Amino acid sequence: MQIEKGTDKLVKTVRLMIKDAPGYLGKLATAIGSMGGNIGDVKIIRFGMEYNTRDITVFVDDEEHLERVLEAIGKVEGVIISDVIDLVLELHRGGKIRVKSTVTIEGVSSIRKIYTPGVAKVCKVIQNDPDKAYDFTSIGNSVAIATNGSAILGLGNIGAVPGMPVMEGKAVLFDYLVGINGMPVLIESDDPDEMIFVLSKISSTFGAIKLEDIKAPDCFRIEDALTEALEIPVMHDDQHGTAVVVLAALLNASKYVGMMIKNDVVGVVGLGAAGIGISKILLAYGVKRLMGTDINERAMEIFRERGGEPKNLEEIMRDSDIVIATTGVGGLIKKEMIRKGQVILALSNPNPEILPEEAKGAGASFAADGKGVNNALAFPGIFRGALDSRARKINNRMKLAAARTIANFAEPGEMVPGILNMEMHAAVSKAVERAAFETGVAKPKSDVISED
Amino acid sequence: MQIEKGTDKLVKTVRLMIKDAPGYLGKLATAIGSMGGNIGDVKIIRFGMEYNTRDITVFVDDEEHLERVLEAIGKVEGVIISDVIDLVLELHRGGKIRVKSTVTIEGVSSIRKIYTPGVAKVCKVIQNDPDKAYDFTSIGNSVAIATNGSAILGLGNIGAVPGMPVMEGKAVLFDYLVGINGMPVLIESDDPDEMIFVLSKISSTFGAIKLEDIKAPDCFRIEDALTEALEIPVMHDDQHGTAVVVLAALLNASKYVGMMIKNDVVGVVGLGAAGIGISKILLAYGVKRLMGTDINERAMEIFRERGGEPKNLEEIMRDSDIVIATTGVGGLIKKEMIRKGQVILALSNPNPEILPEEAKGAGASFAADGKGVNNALAFPGIFRGALDSRARKINNRMKLAAARTIANFAEPGEMVPGILNMEMHAAVSKAVERAAFETGVAKPKSDVISED
Repeated sequence: MQIEKGTDKLVKTVRLMIKDAPGYLGKLATAIGSMGGNIGDVKIIRFGMEYNTRDITVFVDDEEHLERVLEAIGKVEGVIISDVIDLVLELHRGGKIRVKSTVTIEGVSSIRKIYTPGVAKVCKVIQNDPDKAYDFTSIGNSVAIATNGSAILGLGNIGAVPGMPVMEGKAVLFDYLVGINGMPVLIESDDPDEMIFVLSKISSTFGAIKLEDIKAPDCFRIEDALTEALEIPVMHDDQHGTAVVVLAALLNASKYVGMMIKNDVVGVVGLGAAGIGISKILLAYGVKRLMGTDINERAMEIFRERGGEPKNLEEIMRDSDIVIATTGVGGLIKKEMIRKGQVILALSNPNPEILPEEAKGAGASFAADGKGVNNALAFPGIFRGALDSRARKINNRMKLAAARTIANFAEPGEMVPGILNMEMHAAVSKAVERAAFETGVAKPKSDVISED
Repeated sequence: MQIEKGTDKLVKTVRLMIKDAPGYLGKLATAIGSMGGNIGDVKIIRFGMEYNTRDITVFVDDEEHLERVLEAIGKVEGVIISDVIDLVLELHRGGKIRVKSTVTIEGVSSIRKIYTPGVAKVCKVIQNDPDKAYDFTSIGNSVAIATNGSAILGLGNIGAVPGMPVMEGKAVLFDYLVGINGMPVLIESDDPDEMIFVLSKISSTFGAIKLEDIKAPDCFRIEDALTEALEIPVMHDDQHGTAVVVLAALLNASKYVGMMIKNDVVGVVGLGAAGIGISKILLAYGVKRLMGTDINERAMEIFRERGGEPKNLEEIMRDSDIVIATTGVGGLIKKEMIRKGQVILALSNPNPEILPEEAKGAGASFAADGKGVNNALAFPGIFRGALDSRARKINNRMKLAAARTIANFAEPGEMVPGILNMEMHAAVSKAVERAAFETGVAKPKSDVISED
């Protein structure tokens, strides 16, 4: 699809009425081209008496460019603009998820079984043995996708409702990749204690909670408190989803250049949610010397508490064998700072801290940006494995198992596999489930036979 | 289906290995019949060398009866019991709902549109105009089904998790009847203020909130406070869903006997959630004299505040033209209490306050129990209409419109139509939507064209 040509291009569909006579479509295409617009699909929508209606997809740089293209179209004789549609926006119209029934309704007798009076019996079974909720409700297959909208993607604190398309996107991935019910929960609060309270109170609706796009340092407090308080797993994806994928990438990168991560000095540049999450998993993996830096003093403190050495950027670039940057600041790392043989992961999107080619040109033994490093490689399998094992928490062993499995599925020469590798997601689920049992956080399933 | 034979019968499926030779199935059937068990479906599961496996459905009175039947089966030579399965329970296994993606994933380019980086654009559109959340997210099609489990069906305060099968049942009906996303929200709290706080904080996730199975009087406070605080409709179904259906039933009943509800004296026996809901709608409908009674003093106070006259049961039975009972106490109304010509709706399930035949025998002009009076006639269309009109609240005019529409769809001689009458649900939706616009609580839809 041409949408892939450039991420920054706007894709608009212009609905036009075009005179049904030879030459008009040609004039139109010429007008669009003259203003630098690229034409994609052209689709007939309706044949009319005098005018035909067509949808023409155009690729433009920005809204202003679109205006110029539309103006040029407007000047073509025999062409009338009737609508302008944004394809990406259209894909999101009405939302991206639906809560569907899994039972067949074949008349009133079905209703009497799934609803009153039949349902009362199921309620009583669960009342007598709350564990049965995992057998006879959707709770054990449901994950809350909870946010207050305080750190949505790279957009910052835009609020919970504007963050909903991201939460629904995660729910789509949950459904498609591992068959989990992702249930968005938008919380209107910037107070970590309120977030903890609200999520605790509704936690029994879900088999697990995925915290999403919550700003640092609040995200650390919220995750720690909920993990402590609840019997179900709680994971902040921006920390741990990212960290698992970065570790997977690093396992492959170090293999390709013949490094031993555990014995290397690793420097983490940027100690937000992702940077702290990466630090935690590297320490859990066994990295002996971990340095880190951030412009925020509180972030440096948190990093020190977790066992890292706070440094400045220059020290890190000078002393690290491996550098992992998640600052959001494109071009932060200059090529003069690169030390020969370093591994550089400059992960900020869309503009990395240093371009991979530039880093390699300056002597890096391996360099990559964040394009392939996507949380969606990790979170579906991690949660599937946690739910399947009825794990009380998602511990380091489970995360490390996920990272190793993801790494194993990468093609030779690649850092990570593709997001849609279904076999990989299934393998991650299994590996996480196994790790949960091995570390004693899993709960054996209740009897399958239902003689109540 | 034979499950309809009697609501109180247990339906069990016994999986048996039966010797593959003539006569064994006959002996088995005789054994089951000898203990008073009824046989339903008989299905072959597997043909074996010596034994065939069959599932035999049996209808028994209770668990003890089942034991006797199983014992008799166990004594039949050539028959081995391998499992006992509860059909109704099996129908609920794994839960009854799934959160499904509505977008097609056809490779990584789809992911880039529905997730990062494409989704960022949708977030920004909503950030600039929060109203667009109704166009580009599922919020406007989602209803929270919120409970603390304090009054689940007739089971009482069994807790939120044991109530989940009911919440899922409502979600199934929402999906099947009107295409709404019903999202269960279980709240672990018996404190109305906590419930109000939690639901307020997460309310922006939904287009409306359906309060469910919350005990009186907490339900009144919670509904009032949320309706006051939120810009989205909040409705306690046990009050208003029931009330709308009862009014619909009453509109037909009074027509059949030639009464004018507004000019009649109406007595409400039992002032729990349903009784108070019924009282509210009857006053809104224009009933001039409304009497009520309850054993709970606080309920009587609430009834008085709403404009009713507290009385005792004897006074109500003596002075009312129409009596509506929702006490949960079977047989409460004795036939000696019935006044000639009275309309009696004894709605408690499964045991009404007085059997319809008994009431008619004692001189009632019309009598019915609660079997057909099901909230599911009302709530789907009410919420569909409220969402479609973007109503800020569900007001009396909307409820009255729903009641009149439901009444109109009843077959001649019947009080209410069947639950699966899809035309009726569509008509209720439209009537509620129209009433929302006419009363000024609706919000015109934002532009359909998305030139952002």
